[in-house]
Order: sequence, then C-alpha cells, then structure tokens
Amino acid sequence: MFYVIGLGLSDEKDITVKGLEAVKRCERIYLESYTSILMCDKEKLEAFYGKPVITATREMVELEADEILKDSDKIDVAFLVVGDPLGATTHTDLLLRARSLNIPSQVIHNASILTALGSTGLQMYSFGQTLSLVFYTETWRPDSWFDKLEENLKIGVHTLILLDIKVREQSEENMARGRLIYEPPRYMNPATGFSQILLTESLRHGTNPEDREEGVEYKESLLKPSETLAISLSRIGTSTQSLISGTLEELSKLSEEDFGEPLHSLVIVGKKLHPLEFEYAGKFAINGENGDWWKVGKDVYGVERETF
Amino acid sequence: MFYVIGLGLSDEKDITVKGLEAVKRCERIYLESYTSILMCDKEKLEAFYGKPVITATREMVELEADEILKDSDKIDVAFLVVGDPLGATTHTDLLLRARSLNIPSQVIHNASILTALGSTGLQMYSFGQTLSLVFYTETWRPDSWFDKLEENLKIGVHTLILLDIKVREQSEENMARGRLIYEPPRYMNPATGFSQILLTESLRHGTNPEDREEGVEYKESLLKPSETLAISLSRIGTSTQSLISGTLEELSKLSEEDFGEPLHSLVIVGKKLHPLEFEYAGKFAINGENGDWWKVGKDVYGVERETF
Repeated sequence: MFYVIGLGLSDEKDITVKGLEAVKRCERIYLESYTSILMCDKEKLEAFYGKPVITATREMVELEADEILKDSDKIDVAFLVVGDPLGATTHTDLLLRARSLNIPSQVIHNASILTALGSTGLQMYSFGQTLSLVFYTETWRPDSWFDKLEENLKIGVHTLILLDIKVREQSEENMARGRLIYEPPRYMNPATGFSQILLTESLRHGTNPEDREEGVEYKESLLKPSETLAISLSRIGTSTQSLISGTLEELSKLSEEDFGEPLHSLVIVGKKLHPLEFEYAGKFAINGENGDWWKVGKDVYGVERETF
Repeated sequence: MFYVIGLGLSDEKDITVKGLEAVKRCERIYLESYTSILMCDKEKLEAFYGKPVITATREMVELEADEILKDSDKIDVAFLVVGDPLGATTHTDLLLRARSLNIPSQVIHNASILTALGSTGLQMYSFGQTLSLVFYTETWRPDSWFDKLEENLKIGVHTLILLDIKVREQSEENMARGRLIYEPPRYMNPATGFSQILLTESLRHGTNPEDREEGVEYKESLLKPSETLAISLSRIGTSTQSLISGTLEELSKLSEEDFGEPLHSLVIVGKKLHPLEFEYAGKFAINGENGDWWKVGKDVYGVERETF
C-alpha cells in the first residue's frame, strides 16, 4: 500500500493515531520537504516513529516518482506531507502515477492551514479562493494574485494569502555554473507580505502619487489600506501561535520582529463579516480596544459589537 | 484547561496523538453531537479513551455553556468536535465565553471536509465560499445559497455544498404539544441535493417551462445542468469513501442507493478547472471514459487531457 499521510501543522504528535499506525507498518518513509515545513526536526520524527525518514526533495518527487513508489504493491510505503496531503495538486501527480502502475494507495487526512485559520475566529466557510504571494525582486513582481483578491473582495468573502517558502534554492550564479550549492531557506515575513500587497495595490490603482503613470486611467481600489481589515497568522497550531489583527495600514507599520519566527500567512477580511467573527478576531487587535479594528469594522464593514 | 479537540472525519483513530493525550488528561469529556457525526459510535470512543463521554446537544451547549466550562480553570475538560473544531462559528461562542471567565483554552486542529475534499483531485485553494443546503419542504425553500453559488460560478471557482443534517428534531405536532419526542436523524442524500439545486435553478431562471411565471424576465443561468460538472462526496475519509463525477444532469438521474449511506456533500466544479484536477476527478466519472464528464470538460470548460 502506498500511504500519503498528512502530518498536521506543528510537531510529531499532530499525526493522527491512524496515520501513526500506518507509518509503523511502512518499510520506507519519505518526508516531502519543499511545499511546507513542520515546526520540528526530521530527527524528532525518526525518534517518534523508531524508523529512518528519507527527505524527499522536489527533484526526487518529480524525477524519481517510480523510485518512491517502488514495490509498494507488495510492501507498505509512506509519503508524509505537512498539513493535509491533498491541499494543492502537487501530490495528485504521485497518486495518478500510482494508479497507472496499479499500486493501491490510501490518503490519511489531517489539519491544514485552511482549517486551522479558524483560530482567527473567521469561519472557513466564508473564505474565497486562496492566494500565494512569492518574493518580489527588482525585476520580477508577478501580480496575478491581485486579480483573485479583487474577485474575492467584490463578493465580500475573506481571503487567505499563503506566503512564499524558498528551500533548496540556488543563486543565479550557482545555477549558471551548475554548482549544486543551495541558499539558506527563506520564509516570507508578514512585514514583507503587507508591503508587497500595498505596492501592487498602489501600482494597479495609482494610490501613491509617485506610483502613477501619466495617461493611465486608474480605477478606485477595493483594497484601501486604511479601510481594509487584515490578520497575520504566525506559527498556527504551535504553542507560540500568534495572531495580529488591524487595518492593512496599521499592520504594514509593524516590523519583522513583531511577527517573529516562521511560518506565517495572512488573511484579508471580506465585507461579509459576522459580529461573532468581528468580536473573536478583535481580541488580537493592534492597540486593543483603541485599535482601528473596531472603528473600521463599525464604520466601513457595518458590524455592530455584541457582548459575551 | 478547556480543550476543544477536532476528531477528524471517520472513526476513533482519526484523533491526533496530541488530541488523544489531552483527552486522557481530562476529567470531563463532551462530544458535540449536532453539527456533524462521526462514523463510529460513542461507545467506541469511550472504549478507546477508557473514559465516559457526555453527549452535548445543541440545547446544552447554548443554554448550559457555564456547566460545560465549570472548573476548567482547575481541571482539564475536553469538548470534542467532529472534523476541525473551528470550521464554523458555532463553537467560537464557547471559546469567547471561556475567555470572559478567564478560563485558559486550547484548540487542537484536525482534518475537516474542507481539506478532505482534496480527494476529489480539485485543489482546495481554488474553492470559493462554502454553501449549506437545508431540506426543502412544500412551503419553505430558503434559497439564498443560490446567490453565493452564482458569485462563485461568476469568478470560476469551485463550490463545496454541505448537505443538511437533522438530529434531535421535533415534529411540529410534538413541538406544539411540548412533547420531547425526537424524530429519527435525517441526512440529506445527494439525490435530494441535486434535485433541490435543479429546482431552485429552474425557479430562478425559468429553465423548465412549467416553472416560468408570466411577466417575469428571466436571465440566462450560469448553472446549465447539461454543461456544469459536479461531484458527489460520500463517507469521505472512511474505508467506504465514494465519489461520483459527471454533469449535473447525469448526477441528478442517479438514485439514493447509488450514493449509499451518509454523510454526503457535493461539489460544483468552477470554470478555472486545471488539467490535473480534470484528470483526477475524471476517474470517478459516470460511464467512465464515455461519460459526459470528458466531453463537457473539453467543450465547455476548455480543458485538454494529459497523459500519465
């Protein structure tokens, strides 16, 4: 059996009992290491399972899928994925490949950022499509995510924004010279995320006078920094989990240190905000009861507070 | 500590190792029994935990929250929820109440239908807001969900539709007479779901001539039964999990038996369909390779097949 097993979000004990039982039956155990990271070391997993764990890089999964699947029609093999294993289509390939080789497979689900974002107090049923924000460079600022954000804003739903993770990346020079030397891993901090969001918003809508190009007609933005509520999610599902809520403007003034260690993601709050959501997420507000969160929620989002 | 713990989707072994350790520390254990059901009996949970489990009805959670929270600043108390505990705002109340009583709380996440729907092959990041469909009666057909479905269709994202669960419901007569007699639980079958969807579509857009009212101007529907792809999800995460994909028209001709035992939910496929999603979900197609799935995917959704 080829098992694809979700590990959940934080440490070795977030695996399900069913998942752990399957791992213990397996003769080979791979850990997918490039779409997300667990908040604990591979060594800790190995100690917990009492078995060696093989790190599966992107190259391995894409180029040596048959090696990973090998003999799993006869023995048990596990492919471990942080979060839920079928969040993105990344691992659908592997399952389709298994099927074409007549290898039986089983998926064991787990929590992912998509369910854990319930910790914001926003209900996951009111979220629209999820976006991914990659590190901008001077010359490369892919911004198609902004169209999706505007689609979500237009219908008033919330938006989860996943922040870039760069592991085993080569510098341009090393790549050009064919040297397999990798840069240290980089995880986007919300400070970078918010500044990229405001940059693209301004370039698209000419919000800052200095970003305006002559002859271009700018439409009014749905994402006004001082009138849009957002939340940062840091280390969700771990014991140092931290959330900060406020206007985009307030949040964009915070420093990297305010958000702390990775992993992070962001939420842009849609206009269909419910009083219970407003109240719950407000407990993370910058400046507490005096934060802009409450004023903008009332004046712009039109939500009244309830007492508990 | 007041623990709110997700149980995942299927049986007693879908709890996480961390969740199980917390349960074992708790002196009182409540099982929320009205927003979803686990595919195993309470007795099985009790045997697995080695402790009694108290069924928490909606009335108990809404009217006796303080009883549930009692002493959990001194002892450990668990509140178990099927799926992920923070999917809806239902349990946000309880956590806000705990906070107002200065009771420390911890949420232990798990898989939910929102992550497990990855089993369709559709990526969860391409889903829009989630809808809930309740049982229609002759006189009560709440259809505001249809507006949300059209919002999703307009921007091409997929839609998860949760199907009604009725537990501990009283008949009108028993309610009127104040008799605490409950009807047997009812779980909406996809056959009912699809027929309600087609009914509302027709009433809104005058699709069937007999549903047209004179003098009303009907706009063209975004949800054409023969041109819209959908998927039924049954018993997701269990060993008898079953998915069926096809056009709305094909799916609406199936019987309740074709879908089998609860729980079920539905997916309406959006126009931003990716070739990998198309291929993976196609393995569940009605009539296999000859199903309308492939023809409509190509002609209406504009997706070309890939080989694996």
